Amino acid sequence: MCAQLLRVEQALSDWVASNLPANSSLPVDLAVDLAPVLSQAMRYAVLDGGKRLRPLLVLAAAESVNFGHTASSEKASQAALRAACAVELIHAYSLVHDDMPCMDNDILRRGKPTVHVKFGEAQALLAGDALQALAFELLTPAPEVVDTAVQATLCRILALSAGCHGMAGGQAIDLASVGKLLAIDELHTMHRLKTGALLQASVMMGAACGTASPAAKLALQEYGAAIGLAFQVVDDVLDVTADTATLGKTAGKDADQDKPTFVSLLGLDASKAYADKLLQQALAALARTGLGNTRALQALAHMVVNRTT
Amino acid sequence: MCAQLLRVEQALSDWVASNLPANSSLPVDLAVDLAPVLSQAMRYAVLDGGKRLRPLLVLAAAESVNFGHTASSEKASQAALRAACAVELIHAYSLVHDDMPCMDNDILRRGKPTVHVKFGEAQALLAGDALQALAFELLTPAPEVVDTAVQATLCRILALSAGCHGMAGGQAIDLASVGKLLAIDELHTMHRLKTGALLQASVMMGAACGTASPAAKLALQEYGAAIGLAFQVVDDVLDVTADTATLGKTAGKDADQDKPTFVSLLGLDASKAYADKLLQQALAALARTGLGNTRALQALAHMVVNRTT
Repeated sequence: MCAQLLRVEQALSDWVASNLPANSSLPVDLAVDLAPVLSQAMRYAVLDGGKRLRPLLVLAAAESVNFGHTASSEKASQAALRAACAVELIHAYSLVHDDMPCMDNDILRRGKPTVHVKFGEAQALLAGDALQALAFELLTPAPEVVDTAVQATLCRILALSAGCHGMAGGQAIDLASVGKLLAIDELHTMHRLKTGALLQASVMMGAACGTASPAAKLALQEYGAAIGLAFQVVDDVLDVTADTATLGKTAGKDADQDKPTFVSLLGLDASKAYADKLLQQALAALARTGLGNTRALQALAHMVVNRTT
Repeated sequence: MCAQLLRVEQALSDWVASNLPANSSLPVDLAVDLAPVLSQAMRYAVLDGGKRLRPLLVLAAAESVNFGHTASSEKASQAALRAACAVELIHAYSLVHDDMPCMDNDILRRGKPTVHVKFGEAQALLAGDALQALAFELLTPAPEVVDTAVQATLCRILALSAGCHGMAGGQAIDLASVGKLLAIDELHTMHRLKTGALLQASVMMGAACGTASPAAKLALQEYGAAIGLAFQVVDDVLDVTADTATLGKTAGKDADQDKPTFVSLLGLDASKAYADKLLQQALAALARTGLGNTRALQALAHMVVNRTT
């Protein structure tokens, strides 16, 4: 897992707001950094921080479906690395925008000042926008690098999970739910979209970098749904049990903002038990995939539920 | 042109924040509108307004490269319509974010209150984000609808033109340039990215929906660059010569904000003459394409330069 993490960090550093577009033979005069503040804000938002859970899910899922295949492994590996970075860029942009004063108005993220505190709101807004575009740029290199059919599939999954039927839709529900009493199924729906969609998409993008039967894909989808929900349940638990220094972001925020959470609806112990149940569901789904190597996916499921930050 | 405009309006109305994702066979329970305010904000930002210049450029360019081809015309037509809408969604999202208080802080757009005035800043931010994702969703339907090689190319062109090496980069330069004295070549660079990149991308996305020789593509690229720049020169002229009611947005804003413009650098008459020169360049480039039917592209070039709003 550590080697994969280093690959992701290196690739993000190479690709985010470098002076050269990641997917194009460009006019030479564009190879200088025309908007240095934007580049800095983009790099600040992405590099040197974050658990990289989503990229690791992409790579682990890609590993599981490519296990034993040696043919075309270079292209598959490149596709998976690009998918891993692309999904992290979407996650990073969502945090930048989410932290802005008009949204959560948070000043601390990963133990550092948030992007708008450091670079101003306008550049933060633009940096988020540019990171979203960069995600799709990374997914669409020259056809020699990644097969175009895979490129199209990756863009399709990512776009759907990021937009109004996924992450952005979930955030909109979240906004509208502050101070309201949500039923548990409404809370599920919100989180399935807000956090779950992108986590599940990470798994499915990894799976799209190799070959898997429809049954295996369905089981991977269930795995993704279970850990996506588990992630949020654990997030709600940590918001109550961890402190700001450990989390690297403001703890106790949900209660302060009167947001409905699993803890507020189910209680702390029942929430912890629910997270464990979801872990078992995820592992059971993995077993049903029939794929050769799901060890990394198993480890990530444990990590999601047992994390302390 | 009028028939094309109606096609675009209908497609946008069908695809923007409809209850069904545009590119996916979805779980039935997502077929309800979970985030109605977000959907409303997205539709408000896109529908019932705008000249639709970018979509018309896509369709005109697609027409020019598909002229005389009848084979696979249905797929090419579908690709072009989706590309036309996708590029408009990117344009629309950029306006939503650009109008926000932390950017231009504008309250009027297309003669109506801007999105954040109508729906609040948080929903405006999310609506812009979701519109960008939707653009890529539109470009990646099932492989039976549009060839995956075309899907990948369209995503590649759009992502590059929207991100830090294109539109967002240009906006960042624009932000940094307020109150500064730019040289004319710096102003060119800013506008080539801020407005030009997406206009040129519109032409090249249309061209990607059919077959054109490398020479023809190069000439189309020059056409796109010329009208992209002309568009901005005319914008600067209109900001001085037109009134707010005619423009549907606040006139005289550039001078008020002490922004460098072509008019402030070259003067009004020289700016008008420059726009005409760019029109001639665009028409000359079209003639060099050797393509069968460039009438719509010619008409659009005239429209860009001779528009009054």
